[in-house]
Amino acid sequence: MEKPLVIIGGDAAGMSAASKAKREDPEKNVIVFEKGEWVSYGACGLPYYIKGEIEDIDELVSIPPEKFIEERDIDIRLKQEVTSINPNEETVTVKNSDEKYQQSYDKLLIATGASPIEPPFEGTKLRNVFTLRDMEEGKQIRQTIEKEFKDTNQTKRVGIIGGGYIGIEMAEAFSGRNFDVSLFEMLPHILSPFGEETAEYTEKHLRKNGINLYLDTKVNKIIGEKKAEGIDIVDETIPVDIVLIGVGVKPNVQIIKDTDIELGSTGAIKVDEYGRTNYKNIFAAGDCAEANNILTGNPDYVPLALTANRAGRSIGETMVGKPKKVGGIVGTAVLKAFDLEIARTGLIDSQRAEEAGYTMVKKTITTPSRPHYYPGGSDIKITMTADKNTGKLLGTSMVGKEGTAKRIDTVAASLHKDTSVPELEMFDLSYAPPFSPVWDPILTAAKVLNGEIE
Amino acid sequence: MEKPLVIIGGDAAGMSAASKAKREDPEKNVIVFEKGEWVSYGACGLPYYIKGEIEDIDELVSIPPEKFIEERDIDIRLKQEVTSINPNEETVTVKNSDEKYQQSYDKLLIATGASPIEPPFEGTKLRNVFTLRDMEEGKQIRQTIEKEFKDTNQTKRVGIIGGGYIGIEMAEAFSGRNFDVSLFEMLPHILSPFGEETAEYTEKHLRKNGINLYLDTKVNKIIGEKKAEGIDIVDETIPVDIVLIGVGVKPNVQIIKDTDIELGSTGAIKVDEYGRTNYKNIFAAGDCAEANNILTGNPDYVPLALTANRAGRSIGETMVGKPKKVGGIVGTAVLKAFDLEIARTGLIDSQRAEEAGYTMVKKTITTPSRPHYYPGGSDIKITMTADKNTGKLLGTSMVGKEGTAKRIDTVAASLHKDTSVPELEMFDLSYAPPFSPVWDPILTAAKVLNGEIE
Repeated sequence: MEKPLVIIGGDAAGMSAASKAKREDPEKNVIVFEKGEWVSYGACGLPYYIKGEIEDIDELVSIPPEKFIEERDIDIRLKQEVTSINPNEETVTVKNSDEKYQQSYDKLLIATGASPIEPPFEGTKLRNVFTLRDMEEGKQIRQTIEKEFKDTNQTKRVGIIGGGYIGIEMAEAFSGRNFDVSLFEMLPHILSPFGEETAEYTEKHLRKNGINLYLDTKVNKIIGEKKAEGIDIVDETIPVDIVLIGVGVKPNVQIIKDTDIELGSTGAIKVDEYGRTNYKNIFAAGDCAEANNILTGNPDYVPLALTANRAGRSIGETMVGKPKKVGGIVGTAVLKAFDLEIARTGLIDSQRAEEAGYTMVKKTITTPSRPHYYPGGSDIKITMTADKNTGKLLGTSMVGKEGTAKRIDTVAASLHKDTSVPELEMFDLSYAPPFSPVWDPILTAAKVLNGEIE
Repeated sequence: MEKPLVIIGGDAAGMSAASKAKREDPEKNVIVFEKGEWVSYGACGLPYYIKGEIEDIDELVSIPPEKFIEERDIDIRLKQEVTSINPNEETVTVKNSDEKYQQSYDKLLIATGASPIEPPFEGTKLRNVFTLRDMEEGKQIRQTIEKEFKDTNQTKRVGIIGGGYIGIEMAEAFSGRNFDVSLFEMLPHILSPFGEETAEYTEKHLRKNGINLYLDTKVNKIIGEKKAEGIDIVDETIPVDIVLIGVGVKPNVQIIKDTDIELGSTGAIKVDEYGRTNYKNIFAAGDCAEANNILTGNPDYVPLALTANRAGRSIGETMVGKPKKVGGIVGTAVLKAFDLEIARTGLIDSQRAEEAGYTMVKKTITTPSRPHYYPGGSDIKITMTADKNTGKLLGTSMVGKEGTAKRIDTVAASLHKDTSVPELEMFDLSYAPPFSPVWDPILTAAKVLNGEIE
């Protein structure tokens, strides 16, 4: 019998690859090993499930396993964990509830995802200390909120450690559950990839929404008997009833540790432009793999959903003999904090730009989202960067209310096509009073930044 | 004394040019002749002023004349009309309330704007028949609504002739004033530049909001004694109490009729890439001038605010000796119809594409604006076009609720930079559940359209 395609991990990258491979070659056997019991789930929706805006956790599943099995004829093996890869024999070792077995493969995709980084301080194993690792942990957090904190007279204090995406989205979620929220960030500002201009604006907004922000603050430990009771910082202890740790993620690469599949400099699996590792029949995609940053020309580790889906889909084609590149990234990201929209793309940090051979210039402006006369407008704060010598657009970070997030895509598209700031200034962007001033904030930012270019 | 820069027309193009010229060369005298009493006004806001969302018409003025005069030192001459241009003598003839005089110029900018097209049928001079020519007429419409139609028991029926931007925005405005709205469109669909897929979706939405749509319907005449009383169509008369005609605009070019300043094939003033006419010291910009369509490589007439502002600003620099191109257009436009956002850019019509040497392929899809699980999402219907032979992206039209309008800018940017659909499919666009599905509707449209490309 012909050897199957084998995929390790049943979320974004893995299921995209499996679906695309079957669509392109319905005769090919495709086996997906998933150690948990969920496939193809929207982990990005967990904060909103915990907040209560999404009622049932099953709603987060885009396509249930039965459908993959019955309609798409994909052999999904839930609760089966691949424990090792044997690249020379072209087999994987699989553990299910009662046995271990070998599965041979024609092509293999490693799509094992990422896990929360465990911080180095004490107390992370106490009860009511959570990360947001997966669906199971999401369920536990919500159950804890709904069971242990249902009494309205009770203290409800959450300590959130880490001011990244998860930390901020969870601050909104706990706030929506009437918790008193304290957020601890080790660096001088939250959201470091967005630059300090955007971060400062967001910090003000978080404080306005009642979040207690502790910036530039190292957590010494979480204290408590059995249950988390407080967070120790430099000279005080902040009492808490529950703790959420979101200090970043690391790629799940344990599985390759006994192989000579190569890791890249970022610590994630090194791949070529087709998502292929140093073994021609082994691919990697999603949060366990690197991606090529178009602006630096170097491998980058930005574990986000679109990159995973896109790479998985391309590799699905490549694995059935129709080579397709996985595509590069420019580092686009957006998030919501209460009614604020926060967006970034490209290079914002001057040191990173310098490492890539650019001399960064940067301008920050605040412009209205609509003409002054049209009701409902609000400010958008936008920071744009360019290379001083060539005028090449390098990146943009922005923050504001309605209409900010999706504006970043205009800049992302421009970055993909190597656009100069003088060119961007002359783009024919849309205008009507309900949506924008005549000069969209992006055009205005480009006009202002132009003054800095040689 | 050094001859001044002279600008005919004090709205978007004219005032942008005047301001920019003064900023670049504060010593230069700049005279702006404006036959009305308003300068730099947001005519695009008039429907919302009439609807009542904007209280005072003065709010539409971005910068009052005094400010231009005092702070920017621009010599604005209100209620003074330029009646002729003498290119060989380099003078213009100006008429004010009591005299005519000659004014010489160093450089001249014609920024006379456009006027509503007068339809060929009878009854357009009856009382309560309006166009939306200018601020004055906007004021009259609102006064008429507030004075003649303030009695709540009275019939309030408006007939709107023309299903373009003005017609649709005014349908919303009158509907907001509790009028029964009938809209008459001669063609089979409203909004012809947006393509029929977008038009049909919009038509359904207008009907759902109580607008009586008469498509494919020629108006024979407006009937009435003194006041408009009905609109005669093929075999019936629709009773109305007020009429708004919005059947398009034509460039105001009467002023050049006794000169040999050249008109282009579109009927607007022909200009080069610097906005210069066939006279080296005479420029034209805004709604009276052509612009270069980047996709066809030909002159086009798309009288919109950004094009006017942009061209005016560049010409302001050029006129003081710092030549700057006015930039091309891709035909981006957006409008709102109740809670619907409608957007277009590029080439949507296959015949226009063919004339420009393309073989158009087109795909229309409907996708959700957010992941299925995130509350508040709605459908976006998106039509994307490309050249079948090269895969070059040609245009996009889309319609939907929140988050649709500004998405068009991503496509506009891509059109400016000559992007193929396979490239667009791999763009790193933003994703977070509150704003978008993992694959933004633009990416999904590109994926689907890719299947049509050779």
